[in-house]
Amino acid sequence: MTDTGMTIRSHCPISLALDVIGDRWSLLIVRDLMFAGKRYYRELMRSDEGISSNILAERLTRLVDAGVLSRTDDPTHKQKAIYSLTPMGIDLLPVVAQLGIWGRKYLPVTPETGAQAARLEKGGAPLLRKIEAGLRKQHAIEPVNKRNHKPDKGDR
Amino acid sequence: MTDTGMTIRSHCPISLALDVIGDRWSLLIVRDLMFAGKRYYRELMRSDEGISSNILAERLTRLVDAGVLSRTDDPTHKQKAIYSLTPMGIDLLPVVAQLGIWGRKYLPVTPETGAQAARLEKGGAPLLRKIEAGLRKQHAIEPVNKRNHKPDKGDR
Repeated sequence: MTDTGMTIRSHCPISLALDVIGDRWSLLIVRDLMFAGKRYYRELMRSDEGISSNILAERLTRLVDAGVLSRTDDPTHKQKAIYSLTPMGIDLLPVVAQLGIWGRKYLPVTPETGAQAARLEKGGAPLLRKIEAGLRKQHAIEPVNKRNHKPDKGDR
Repeated sequence: MTDTGMTIRSHCPISLALDVIGDRWSLLIVRDLMFAGKRYYRELMRSDEGISSNILAERLTRLVDAGVLSRTDDPTHKQKAIYSLTPMGIDLLPVVAQLGIWGRKYLPVTPETGAQAARLEKGGAPLLRKIEAGLRKQHAIEPVNKRNHKPDKGDR
Protein backbone atom coordinates (compact mmCIF):
# COMPACT_ATOMS: atom_id res chain seq x y z
CA MET A 1 0.00 0.00 0.00
CA THR A 2 1.15 3.56 -0.68
CA ASP A 3 0.42 6.57 1.49
CA THR A 4 -2.55 7.28 -0.78
CA GLY A 5 -4.09 3.93 0.06
CA MET A 6 -3.45 2.41 -3.35
CA THR A 7 -1.96 -1.03 -3.74
CA ILE A 8 1.18 -1.25 -5.84
CA ARG A 9 1.28 -4.53 -7.77
CA SER A 10 4.76 -4.14 -9.26
CA HIS A 11 7.24 -1.43 -10.14
CA CYS A 12 6.58 -1.70 -13.87
CA PRO A 13 5.70 1.84 -15.02
CA ILE A 14 2.65 0.61 -16.95
CA SER A 15 1.37 -1.28 -13.93
CA LEU A 16 2.06 1.70 -11.64
CA ALA A 17 0.21 4.00 -14.03
CA LEU A 18 -2.77 1.62 -14.06
CA ASP A 19 -2.72 1.51 -10.25
CA VAL A 20 -3.46 5.26 -10.38
CA ILE A 21 -5.73 5.73 -13.41
CA GLY A 22 -6.53 2.17 -14.54
CA ASP A 23 -10.21 2.06 -13.81
CA ARG A 24 -13.25 2.79 -15.92
CA TRP A 25 -13.83 6.32 -14.57
CA SER A 26 -10.63 8.18 -13.70
CA LEU A 27 -9.63 8.99 -17.28
CA LEU A 28 -13.18 10.16 -18.04
CA ILE A 29 -12.86 12.68 -15.22
CA VAL A 30 -9.46 13.75 -16.60
CA ARG A 31 -11.03 13.98 -20.08
CA ASP A 32 -13.78 16.29 -18.79
CA LEU A 33 -11.21 18.60 -17.21
CA MET A 34 -9.05 18.50 -20.36
CA PHE A 35 -11.56 18.81 -23.15
CA ALA A 36 -14.87 19.97 -21.67
CA GLY A 37 -13.54 22.71 -19.39
CA LYS A 38 -15.32 21.20 -16.36
CA ARG A 39 -13.88 22.28 -13.00
CA TYR A 40 -16.66 21.77 -10.46
CA TYR A 41 -18.17 18.68 -8.88
CA ARG A 42 -21.62 19.52 -10.22
CA GLU A 43 -20.25 19.94 -13.75
CA LEU A 44 -18.40 16.62 -13.53
CA MET A 45 -21.63 14.92 -12.41
CA ARG A 46 -23.25 15.91 -15.72
CA SER A 47 -21.63 13.55 -18.20
CA ASP A 48 -23.12 11.29 -20.84
CA GLU A 49 -21.68 8.31 -19.02
CA GLY A 50 -23.80 8.90 -15.91
CA ILE A 51 -21.19 8.61 -13.19
CA SER A 52 -22.72 8.11 -9.76
CA SER A 53 -22.13 10.68 -7.06
CA ASN A 54 -20.28 8.34 -4.72
CA ILE A 55 -17.95 7.03 -7.45
CA LEU A 56 -17.19 10.59 -8.59
CA ALA A 57 -16.42 11.71 -5.04
CA GLU A 58 -14.21 8.69 -4.40
CA ARG A 59 -12.31 9.05 -7.67
CA LEU A 60 -11.77 12.79 -7.19
CA THR A 61 -10.30 12.17 -3.74
CA ARG A 62 -8.04 9.44 -5.13
CA LEU A 63 -6.88 11.58 -8.05
CA VAL A 64 -6.10 14.50 -5.71
CA ASP A 65 -4.23 12.20 -3.32
CA ALA A 66 -2.26 10.72 -6.23
CA GLY A 67 -1.26 14.20 -7.42
CA VAL A 68 -3.15 14.09 -10.74
CA LEU A 69 -5.65 16.78 -9.72
CA SER A 70 -5.59 19.59 -7.21
CA ARG A 71 -8.53 20.91 -5.27
CA THR A 72 -8.81 24.47 -4.06
CA ASP A 73 -11.55 26.74 -2.81
CA ASP A 74 -13.05 28.78 -5.60
CA PRO A 75 -12.20 32.41 -4.78
CA THR A 76 -15.56 33.57 -6.14
CA HIS A 77 -17.71 30.94 -4.37
CA LYS A 78 -16.36 30.21 -0.93
CA GLN A 79 -18.44 27.06 -0.55
CA LYS A 80 -17.35 25.50 -3.82
CA ALA A 81 -14.19 23.58 -4.60
CA ILE A 82 -12.52 23.95 -7.96
CA TYR A 83 -10.57 21.03 -9.45
CA SER A 84 -7.49 21.57 -11.59
CA LEU A 85 -5.14 19.34 -13.51
CA THR A 86 -1.67 19.36 -11.99
CA PRO A 87 1.35 19.12 -14.32
CA MET A 88 1.14 15.35 -13.65
CA GLY A 89 -2.49 15.42 -14.79
CA ILE A 90 -1.76 17.54 -17.86
CA ASP A 91 0.93 15.02 -18.82
CA LEU A 92 -1.86 12.44 -19.24
CA LEU A 93 -2.85 14.28 -22.42
CA PRO A 94 -0.93 11.92 -24.77
CA VAL A 95 -2.49 8.87 -23.04
CA VAL A 96 -6.02 10.27 -23.33
CA ALA A 97 -5.39 11.39 -26.93
CA GLN A 98 -4.11 7.95 -27.98
CA LEU A 99 -7.07 6.26 -26.28
CA GLY A 100 -9.44 8.50 -28.22
CA ILE A 101 -7.67 7.90 -31.52
CA TRP A 102 -7.81 4.14 -30.92
CA GLY A 103 -11.47 4.28 -29.85
CA ARG A 104 -12.43 6.26 -32.94
CA LYS A 105 -10.64 3.79 -35.21
CA TYR A 106 -12.22 0.62 -33.83
CA LEU A 107 -15.36 1.41 -31.86
CA PRO A 108 -18.84 2.77 -32.70
CA VAL A 109 -18.29 6.53 -32.45
CA THR A 110 -20.56 8.97 -34.22
CA PRO A 111 -19.24 11.74 -36.50
CA GLU A 112 -19.91 14.18 -33.65
CA THR A 113 -18.33 12.19 -30.82
CA GLY A 114 -15.36 11.22 -32.99
CA ALA A 115 -14.58 14.74 -34.22
CA GLN A 116 -12.17 15.69 -31.43
CA ALA A 117 -10.23 12.41 -31.77
CA ALA A 118 -10.03 12.98 -35.53
CA ARG A 119 -8.55 16.43 -34.90
CA LEU A 120 -6.07 14.99 -32.40
CA GLU A 121 -4.93 12.32 -34.87
CA LYS A 122 -4.57 14.83 -37.72
CA GLY A 123 -2.87 17.48 -35.56
CA GLY A 124 -0.28 15.10 -34.10
CA ALA A 125 2.42 16.28 -31.70
CA PRO A 126 2.18 20.00 -32.59
CA LEU A 127 -1.53 20.07 -31.67
CA LEU A 128 -0.86 18.20 -28.40
CA ARG A 129 1.77 20.81 -27.48
CA LYS A 130 -0.70 23.59 -28.21
CA ILE A 131 -3.46 21.99 -26.10
CA GLU A 132 -0.96 21.34 -23.32
CA ALA A 133 0.12 25.00 -23.29
CA GLY A 134 -3.53 26.05 -23.01
CA LEU A 135 -4.15 23.62 -20.14
CA ARG A 136 -1.09 24.88 -18.27
CA LYS A 137 -2.54 28.39 -18.37
CA GLN A 138 -6.09 27.40 -17.41
CA HIS A 139 -5.05 25.04 -14.62
CA ALA A 140 -2.19 27.06 -13.12
CA ILE A 141 -3.35 26.74 -9.54
CA GLU A 142 -1.02 25.61 -6.80
CA PRO A 143 -1.74 22.02 -5.78
CA VAL A 144 -3.52 21.69 -2.48
CA ASN A 145 -1.23 20.22 0.16
CA LYS A 146 -2.66 16.73 0.41
CA ARG A 147 -1.60 16.40 4.05
CA ASN A 148 -4.02 19.19 4.94
CA HIS A 149 -6.75 18.02 2.61
CA LYS A 150 -9.82 16.60 4.29
CA PRO A 151 -12.80 15.83 2.07
CA ASP A 152 -15.89 17.61 3.30
CA LYS A 153 -19.36 16.68 2.16
CA GLY A 154 -20.50 20.30 2.10
CA ASP A 155 -18.00 21.61 -0.38
CA ARG A 156 -16.87 18.58 -2.30
CA MET B 1 -25.06 -3.94 -23.92
CA THR B 2 -23.05 -4.95 -26.97
CA ASP B 3 -22.92 -8.39 -28.50
CA THR B 4 -19.77 -8.99 -26.47
CA GLY B 5 -21.67 -8.37 -23.25
CA MET B 6 -20.00 -5.06 -22.50
CA THR B 7 -22.02 -2.04 -21.49
CA ILE B 8 -21.52 1.06 -23.62
CA ARG B 9 -21.77 4.19 -21.50
CA SER B 10 -21.57 6.74 -24.32
CA HIS B 11 -20.29 7.04 -27.87
CA CYS B 12 -17.29 9.15 -26.87
CA PRO B 13 -14.23 7.36 -28.28
CA ILE B 14 -12.35 7.64 -24.98
CA SER B 15 -15.28 6.18 -23.06
CA LEU B 16 -15.73 3.40 -25.64
CA ALA B 17 -12.03 2.57 -25.41
CA LEU B 18 -12.26 2.40 -21.61
CA ASP B 19 -15.31 0.12 -21.91
CA VAL B 20 -12.97 -2.36 -23.64
CA ILE B 21 -9.61 -1.93 -21.90
CA GLY B 22 -10.33 0.40 -18.97
CA ASP B 23 -9.73 -1.95 -16.10
CA ARG B 24 -6.67 -2.67 -14.01
CA TRP B 25 -5.68 -5.86 -15.85
CA SER B 26 -6.44 -5.78 -19.57
CA LEU B 27 -3.55 -3.51 -20.54
CA LEU B 28 -1.15 -5.58 -18.44
CA ILE B 29 -2.13 -8.63 -20.49
CA VAL B 30 -1.63 -6.61 -23.68
CA ARG B 31 1.73 -5.40 -22.30
CA ASP B 32 2.87 -9.00 -21.71
CA LEU B 33 2.00 -9.96 -25.28
CA MET B 34 3.68 -6.79 -26.64
CA PHE B 35 6.86 -6.57 -24.64
CA ALA B 36 7.43 -9.90 -22.90
CA GLY B 37 6.64 -12.21 -25.82
CA LYS B 38 4.10 -14.16 -23.77
CA ARG B 39 1.56 -16.11 -25.84
CA TYR B 40 0.25 -18.88 -23.56
CA TYR B 41 -2.12 -18.86 -20.61
CA ARG B 42 0.54 -20.33 -18.32
CA GLU B 43 3.03 -17.66 -19.34
CA LEU B 44 0.50 -14.90 -18.76
CA MET B 45 -0.19 -16.32 -15.27
CA ARG B 46 3.45 -15.70 -14.35
CA SER B 47 3.59 -11.92 -13.95
CA ASP B 48 4.96 -9.77 -11.15
CA GLU B 49 1.47 -8.40 -10.58
CA GLY B 50 0.07 -11.79 -9.56
CA ILE B 51 -3.08 -11.93 -11.65
CA SER B 52 -5.50 -14.57 -10.44
CA SER B 53 -6.44 -17.44 -12.70
CA ASN B 54 -10.12 -16.55 -12.90
CA ILE B 55 -9.46 -12.88 -13.68
CA LEU B 56 -6.95 -13.83 -16.38
CA ALA B 57 -9.38 -16.28 -17.98
CA GLU B 58 -12.22 -13.75 -17.88
CA ARG B 59 -10.10 -10.91 -19.32
CA LEU B 60 -8.70 -13.11 -22.09
CA THR B 61 -12.21 -14.11 -23.14
CA ARG B 62 -13.33 -10.48 -23.11
CA LEU B 63 -10.30 -9.29 -25.09
CA VAL B 64 -10.84 -12.02 -27.70
CA ASP B 65 -14.55 -11.17 -27.93
CA ALA B 66 -13.72 -7.47 -28.30
CA GLY B 67 -11.29 -8.22 -31.13
CA VAL B 68 -8.13 -7.10 -29.31
CA LEU B 69 -6.67 -10.62 -29.12
CA SER B 70 -7.17 -13.76 -31.12
CA ARG B 71 -6.99 -17.28 -29.78
CA THR B 72 -5.96 -20.26 -31.89
CA ASP B 73 -4.81 -23.78 -31.28
CA ASP B 74 -1.05 -24.04 -31.12
CA PRO B 75 -0.07 -26.19 -34.13
CA THR B 76 2.72 -27.81 -32.09
CA HIS B 77 0.66 -28.53 -28.95
CA LYS B 78 -2.87 -29.50 -29.85
CA GLN B 79 -4.14 -29.04 -26.29
CA LYS B 80 -2.75 -25.53 -25.90
CA ALA B 81 -4.19 -22.25 -27.11
CA ILE B 82 -1.95 -19.47 -28.34
CA TYR B 83 -2.98 -15.85 -27.93
CA SER B 84 -2.06 -13.21 -30.49
CA LEU B 85 -2.53 -9.48 -30.77
CA THR B 86 -4.87 -8.61 -33.62
CA PRO B 87 -4.20 -5.42 -35.64
CA MET B 88 -6.65 -3.76 -33.21
CA GLY B 89 -4.50 -5.00 -30.30
CA ILE B 90 -1.24 -3.94 -31.93
CA ASP B 91 -2.71 -0.46 -32.39
CA LEU B 92 -2.82 -0.17 -28.59
CA LEU B 93 0.98 0.20 -28.69
CA PRO B 94 0.91 4.04 -28.53
CA VAL B 95 -1.52 3.91 -25.57
CA VAL B 96 0.63 1.41 -23.66
CA ALA B 97 3.81 3.33 -24.53
CA GLN B 98 2.39 6.66 -23.32
CA LEU B 99 1.16 5.03 -20.11
CA GLY B 100 4.65 3.66 -19.48
CA ILE B 101 6.31 7.00 -20.22
CA TRP B 102 3.92 8.74 -17.83
CA GLY B 103 4.38 6.08 -15.14
CA ARG B 104 8.15 6.32 -15.37
CA LYS B 105 8.03 10.11 -15.03
CA TYR B 106 5.81 10.25 -11.95
CA LEU B 107 5.74 6.91 -10.16
CA PRO B 108 8.27 4.80 -8.23
CA VAL B 109 9.87 2.76 -11.00
CA THR B 110 13.31 1.24 -10.59
CA PRO B 111 16.11 1.75 -13.16
CA GLU B 112 15.38 -1.79 -14.39
CA THR B 113 11.61 -1.55 -14.61
CA GLY B 114 11.79 1.92 -16.16
CA ALA B 115 14.35 1.06 -18.84
CA GLN B 116 11.86 0.06 -21.54
CA ALA B 117 9.76 3.20 -20.99
CA ALA B 118 12.91 5.32 -21.18
CA ARG B 119 13.74 3.70 -24.53
CA LEU B 120 10.20 4.29 -25.78
CA GLU B 121 10.34 7.96 -24.81
CA LYS B 122 13.75 8.47 -26.41
CA GLY B 123 12.89 6.50 -29.54
CA GLY B 124 9.63 8.33 -30.22
CA ALA B 125 7.48 7.59 -33.24
CA PRO B 126 10.22 5.85 -35.30
CA LEU B 127 10.78 3.28 -32.52
CA LEU B 128 7.04 2.70 -32.17
CA ARG B 129 6.79 2.00 -35.90
CA LYS B 130 9.66 -0.46 -35.64
CA ILE B 131 8.11 -2.31 -32.68
CA GLU B 132 4.76 -2.34 -34.46
CA ALA B 133 6.29 -3.89 -37.57
CA GLY B 134 7.86 -6.61 -35.40
CA LEU B 135 4.56 -7.31 -33.66
CA ARG B 136 2.73 -7.58 -36.97
CA LYS B 137 5.16 -10.31 -38.01
CA GLN B 138 5.08 -12.22 -34.72
CA HIS B 139 1.31 -12.04 -34.29
CA ALA B 140 0.25 -12.61 -37.89
CA ILE B 141 -2.29 -15.28 -37.07
CA GLU B 142 -5.80 -15.12 -38.43
CA PRO B 143 -8.25 -14.04 -35.71
CA VAL B 144 -10.40 -16.84 -34.38
CA ASN B 145 -14.00 -16.40 -35.45
CA LYS B 146 -15.54 -15.32 -32.19
CA ARG B 147 -18.90 -16.81 -33.11
CA ASN B 148 -17.31 -20.25 -33.04
CA HIS B 149 -15.16 -19.57 -30.01
CA LYS B 150 -16.23 -21.37 -26.86
CA PRO B 151 -13.89 -21.12 -23.86
CA ASP B 152 -12.87 -24.56 -22.71
CA LYS B 153 -11.30 -25.16 -19.35
CA GLY B 154 -9.02 -27.85 -20.70
CA ASP B 155 -7.22 -25.77 -23.28
CA ARG B 156 -7.63 -22.22 -22.09
